[in-house]
Amino acid sequence: MKKFFILMIAMMVCGMSYAQQAIFQGRGVTSPEINADKTVTFRVRAPKAITVQVTGDCIEGRTADMTEKDGVWEYTTPAPVAPEMYTYNFIIDGQRTLDMNNVAVNRDVASLTNILLVTEPGARSDLYAVHDVPHGTVSRIWYHSDYEGINRRMTVYTPAGYETSGKRYPVFYLLHGIGGDEEAWITQGRTAQVLDNLIAQSKAQPMIVVMTNGNIAMEAAPLETSTGYNVPSMGLPKTMEGSFETAFPEIVKFIDKTYRTIPQKRSRAIAGLSMGGFHSKFISQNNPDMFNYIGLFSAAIGVTDANISPIYQDNDKKLATLFSKKPALYWIGIGNEDFLFKNNTDYRKFLDEHGYKYTYMETGGGHIWRNWRIYLTEFVPLLFK
Amino acid sequence: MKKFFILMIAMMVCGMSYAQQAIFQGRGVTSPEINADKTVTFRVRAPKAITVQVTGDCIEGRTADMTEKDGVWEYTTPAPVAPEMYTYNFIIDGQRTLDMNNVAVNRDVASLTNILLVTEPGARSDLYAVHDVPHGTVSRIWYHSDYEGINRRMTVYTPAGYETSGKRYPVFYLLHGIGGDEEAWITQGRTAQVLDNLIAQSKAQPMIVVMTNGNIAMEAAPLETSTGYNVPSMGLPKTMEGSFETAFPEIVKFIDKTYRTIPQKRSRAIAGLSMGGFHSKFISQNNPDMFNYIGLFSAAIGVTDANISPIYQDNDKKLATLFSKKPALYWIGIGNEDFLFKNNTDYRKFLDEHGYKYTYMETGGGHIWRNWRIYLTEFVPLLFK
Repeated sequence: MKKFFILMIAMMVCGMSYAQQAIFQGRGVTSPEINADKTVTFRVRAPKAITVQVTGDCIEGRTADMTEKDGVWEYTTPAPVAPEMYTYNFIIDGQRTLDMNNVAVNRDVASLTNILLVTEPGARSDLYAVHDVPHGTVSRIWYHSDYEGINRRMTVYTPAGYETSGKRYPVFYLLHGIGGDEEAWITQGRTAQVLDNLIAQSKAQPMIVVMTNGNIAMEAAPLETSTGYNVPSMGLPKTMEGSFETAFPEIVKFIDKTYRTIPQKRSRAIAGLSMGGFHSKFISQNNPDMFNYIGLFSAAIGVTDANISPIYQDNDKKLATLFSKKPALYWIGIGNEDFLFKNNTDYRKFLDEHGYKYTYMETGGGHIWRNWRIYLTEFVPLLFK
Repeated sequence: MKKFFILMIAMMVCGMSYAQQAIFQGRGVTSPEINADKTVTFRVRAPKAITVQVTGDCIEGRTADMTEKDGVWEYTTPAPVAPEMYTYNFIIDGQRTLDMNNVAVNRDVASLTNILLVTEPGARSDLYAVHDVPHGTVSRIWYHSDYEGINRRMTVYTPAGYETSGKRYPVFYLLHGIGGDEEAWITQGRTAQVLDNLIAQSKAQPMIVVMTNGNIAMEAAPLETSTGYNVPSMGLPKTMEGSFETAFPEIVKFIDKTYRTIPQKRSRAIAGLSMGGFHSKFISQNNPDMFNYIGLFSAAIGVTDANISPIYQDNDKKLATLFSKKPALYWIGIGNEDFLFKNNTDYRKFLDEHGYKYTYMETGGGHIWRNWRIYLTEFVPLLFK
């Protein structure tokens, strides 16, 4: 037995990419730690640092100074941290870095942050956690864009049991914002967990969720493309200039061909955050027979130059047609601190004046993922009733 | 147009998890940079640091001191870096950290490293890159383990065209080492890219690849389980004590039920690295009619205590039965610096003495991912001929 365990440990240590660091070590300190009183303690070993801070949306005032003892810097929140999913970084001597003791790392385009998930039974954020319920499948699948002439990647959630049920399912197209890619709704949006949990609680219909990459000139998320390990530059080409919206029907066609869908308007939904809300608005009003459920999450409304593309023209007429066909749901959600709040208010005024029915949810906060997760959990239960 | 671009930039900045950092910024320096002469330069901004090093398998001597100029520390390899996939960290004032300018981050259980992929047409590592070829689908799918009484996650690669071809495919079960989980072969092993590229080059048959989680008491990789954001502790329960091997047929049953497989020995392969090689050895010899192709990659051979489980007993008899049924391939790969080299040499001697046929590949190096990727690229073309 002794020989067995020695070899086991050797395998653990040597199994690493390089041998200096044991895979179960390097965790000198525990961070973050959710304490019994629901405060959170962050820790980082940095004996030679002069200043260390923690910054994130779980920190009152965004950034807090940490204090050092025996080379370990520590900060405990003064008050309990409300159940929510947060992201944070450490700032060591002015340089933003990760908490190496927390392997929950989030990539948002070219930025890396750690994730802190605080849950509590009954809290909304409990929907963001993995529970012991039937789990759907999350697939990264590629399609050929005839419009763009390239292979493109998307993320598809199929509900638990899809593979063997033989049934057909409705489809929810869920679009990311201008910075994101086909990973955004899965990582920061917790879509797989939200769907698993809502379906398990019988609060949502089993459905397929399609998370596209909205930057049509890109094949896929950084690291996943044939153009190498690059990240997109500031000038995202072909974004919000009509191409993605124009090409969108080829995605619907691909999904209907590839999955057991109910290929009808009554069983299709589309929603998106920020640029994705903008996309959802124009895709739906340019294809009035395609979607029965439309969701605009902090949507980039009123930012369009109609000259860029025919997709952005004749909007009044297109909206009149869309609403004459009575979509089951036109849903708008926005935070009252969002810089797009006024644009959304103006748009609602327009809808009101024309008697176009919609459902509205106003939250606190601004243009942030917390709101987009909230809107997802509110929108999904309304679909495919 | 002006208003449009101002809003676009506002969306990019605010779309971040928190607003201080623009998603396209924070990339003050470029790192790593592969230079024209194939040397690699690493850079990190740390104006107040006293010592900064870069450590990784791409660095001669493992660790090198970086030099500072204007607050940016830099190190350029003295020689070209051979095409390969590498991992590295920075060590700032003694503390291991990530290169925040490189979003290619690898998690190996509880350790975070950056990835550096150096490719060159014709080099083996070119198989590890995404190319403009048809891509398979990579799915995270859950099954219920009746043996363990829990839901468990696996990663499944289905070849390009699987969804609509109507065809049945052979299945290759690919198992990780003691530290890994169902993500290991996808991230560090580059299995999706290797399969995509070998199939596109007609060097491998289209096949399904099933990457299980070999720690049977675990539902899934860290972060993906109902037990929370924890990482496994040093004492991995129920590892190499017979449970995983005993329960393995339920995985084969699930796959044959869930995917369009060719559910026969002639169309099944199993291989694994280290503990996964150990698993592959015992699963195959305990189920002599299940696999026609067996691969032991740096396998943990000769570490078993037979008293732990009946799975580890009567080995000579079981091997005799296995080889009497003439598997199409029994493949052994090991690095001549591996601490398991002697154990594998002894095992080959045993096979030779009994006239059991096998294919052998000896590489340089030790118990490292470079070797396991090499073995994968050598093994896969031999399957299902």
